[in-house]
Amino acid sequence: MKAVGVVVEYNPFHNGHQYHIQQSKTKTGADVVVAVMSGHFLQRGEPALVDKWYRTKMALLSGVDIVIELPYVFATSKAEQFAKGAIQLLSAMKCESFAFGSEDGNIEPFKNTLSLLHDFRTEYNELIKYYVSQGNSYPKSLFEAYEQLKQKRPQLYIDLAQPNNILGYHYIEAAYLLNSSINPVTIQRIQAGFHDDIQSDTTIASATGIRKALFENGELSDVLQYVPRYTYEQLQDWLQNYQQFANWEAFWPLLRFTIIRYIPKDLTQFADVSEGIEYAIVKYAKVSDSFTDFMNHIKSKRYTWTRLQRMLTHILTGITKEQLHRFSSPTYIRLLGMTSKGQQYLSEKKSEFDLPLISRVASTKDELLQIDLRATEIYSQGIQFISNKKIDGDYKTPPIRI
Amino acid sequence: MKAVGVVVEYNPFHNGHQYHIQQSKTKTGADVVVAVMSGHFLQRGEPALVDKWYRTKMALLSGVDIVIELPYVFATSKAEQFAKGAIQLLSAMKCESFAFGSEDGNIEPFKNTLSLLHDFRTEYNELIKYYVSQGNSYPKSLFEAYEQLKQKRPQLYIDLAQPNNILGYHYIEAAYLLNSSINPVTIQRIQAGFHDDIQSDTTIASATGIRKALFENGELSDVLQYVPRYTYEQLQDWLQNYQQFANWEAFWPLLRFTIIRYIPKDLTQFADVSEGIEYAIVKYAKVSDSFTDFMNHIKSKRYTWTRLQRMLTHILTGITKEQLHRFSSPTYIRLLGMTSKGQQYLSEKKSEFDLPLISRVASTKDELLQIDLRATEIYSQGIQFISNKKIDGDYKTPPIRI
Repeated sequence: MKAVGVVVEYNPFHNGHQYHIQQSKTKTGADVVVAVMSGHFLQRGEPALVDKWYRTKMALLSGVDIVIELPYVFATSKAEQFAKGAIQLLSAMKCESFAFGSEDGNIEPFKNTLSLLHDFRTEYNELIKYYVSQGNSYPKSLFEAYEQLKQKRPQLYIDLAQPNNILGYHYIEAAYLLNSSINPVTIQRIQAGFHDDIQSDTTIASATGIRKALFENGELSDVLQYVPRYTYEQLQDWLQNYQQFANWEAFWPLLRFTIIRYIPKDLTQFADVSEGIEYAIVKYAKVSDSFTDFMNHIKSKRYTWTRLQRMLTHILTGITKEQLHRFSSPTYIRLLGMTSKGQQYLSEKKSEFDLPLISRVASTKDELLQIDLRATEIYSQGIQFISNKKIDGDYKTPPIRI
Repeated sequence: MKAVGVVVEYNPFHNGHQYHIQQSKTKTGADVVVAVMSGHFLQRGEPALVDKWYRTKMALLSGVDIVIELPYVFATSKAEQFAKGAIQLLSAMKCESFAFGSEDGNIEPFKNTLSLLHDFRTEYNELIKYYVSQGNSYPKSLFEAYEQLKQKRPQLYIDLAQPNNILGYHYIEAAYLLNSSINPVTIQRIQAGFHDDIQSDTTIASATGIRKALFENGELSDVLQYVPRYTYEQLQDWLQNYQQFANWEAFWPLLRFTIIRYIPKDLTQFADVSEGIEYAIVKYAKVSDSFTDFMNHIKSKRYTWTRLQRMLTHILTGITKEQLHRFSSPTYIRLLGMTSKGQQYLSEKKSEFDLPLISRVASTKDELLQIDLRATEIYSQGIQFISNKKIDGDYKTPPIRI
């Protein structure tokens, strides 16, 4: 059996994701789709709308065959580390290929950029140094160095100013650095953009747009046309059980209390909290009645929304710099769910996997997994806080089977 | 002007407290009563029913002339440290005497016990060692050593098994060790006991009984007969502003979240958290839906309710062992409120005080005071959590004037 891997958050699973899965299978001829999915905290540094098992179920009901968890340490990191963790897992599971979304669906510019930056590594670094020495910001220097390097070998290259391209680039770079035989494929996105509002004349909307609609109007039916039926049912089920979807606003009283318990300097122990921001975090937590209010106080040109949210995620979960940076590679494959076809793939290939497959977390001492368990515990507390009802959690929830 | 000091929590102020104040003045001939009162966390390790300014107002409206704050570090400590901080403050404010409650209102047995234990210190310590070496518990050994020591000099002694006597003993011992000229006086209690339920045929009930009635029935009118009118009005006003009274049950979601964020061993950094209990604290926090449920899981013969509550107080406020034990004496007199007569006393005596009088906390760097400010911040978060409304806090609240 052949597998294609995808790297996802499914927050929530929508029609664009379903299209991506279908295309990935078609384009690679794979029998099964393996999704490596973030757990309860996501790459933009925020809690997931619904727990990882609800999101697993949505995926399995809509075309994914196996869902495994991207460990917290990778899931909440910058593109490079995020991509590295994900590709290592897909590679360890012997996926023949992985498929990611891009604006034009052409893999060549990605490969060209990868070759260029690796073939001319020394020149690239010197150019960056030069532009920095001329008084340019680091991102600006990267851009200028890249622009100049492209002259060396005229070809089609990707635009590295696009966040989606950066992620795609890091996927293929991770595969290259891993010396993995996994084959990169890219699928053209069929949505307008990433941050757009939902549009009534289409069935495609971004997850960001869908979340925005869910929180702003609070009407589940508003998003019906953008998600598969199964997603809709899972979201409905979640609301019946937990009354509302999770986000930072809902978790704000817990986050605020967590922040205020610290004197500023102690906050810098947590991952991504850079020196200098700790005073503002404590000061404005004390006076802000909502998360949005708080963020508007602390965000600046230097500290972007995403960067701040990642800091806050690590403050909430209590993950320190030392913990986040101790792990350079996943140490296990955590199975969240599978279809019967997925199970067939696991039976056939499991013995060749490069990492142990974990279905039950009962007795593990793995430190990386301990962090995932803690993240679930914290998320679960947040859910209990907003709904007075618990989620079952890592110990009690076996892999979902569809 | 002459002042008599009292050491109080007023949680809440009741008729027994009013009687104690009147008697203290009568017995000592003092012009003013100075109360050194715990702030937002109390000696039994729990949050106060209402904030310290509400409790100050109750006291000033019912016979107290000056209310100063017993710093958190002393207010949440065992009898010895608690008494030491309080007596040092009263002594620093040039009170001629202090008055504490006791079952029989006779100061002689307290003085006799003090002399006995100090005159025969060496023998006492040897007797304790002996009893411990015979396999007795430490409290049992203390008791046996004391019993035997009494034979040396037959007189009236206090029963050191009574919690109230232990506190009284530590007050007079603190005065003695301070070499203070402050004169101890004791006033007979007119209440049945400490933990009793309220009784309908009397106007005297313990603060414990009153709190129990407030939380169990939730009817403020149930406690009307046991408190001065002014207390009743303050409690009413609090409810109008904050909907409910504070206690551990109300703060439980915040405490639980605070606990669960830690791995067990990190909890032992907090004051009073003794090694061995940290695992149970984390384990049962995860499964307990209420504070009472949680406490019933962790309490044992070794870990009494009060001892556990003190640990939990320090975990909630984030006060470490190192912080709690760094301070052996108060470094300031924090004024919470005064009547015009109290103000007269301050004007007359302030220049003789042994410690600086603080009315406003705006710009202090005093480390002991920083801890009080943090305790208020945490308490305030708890109140905001249960009522969605802030208390004004230390920076914004000037001393109450009646």
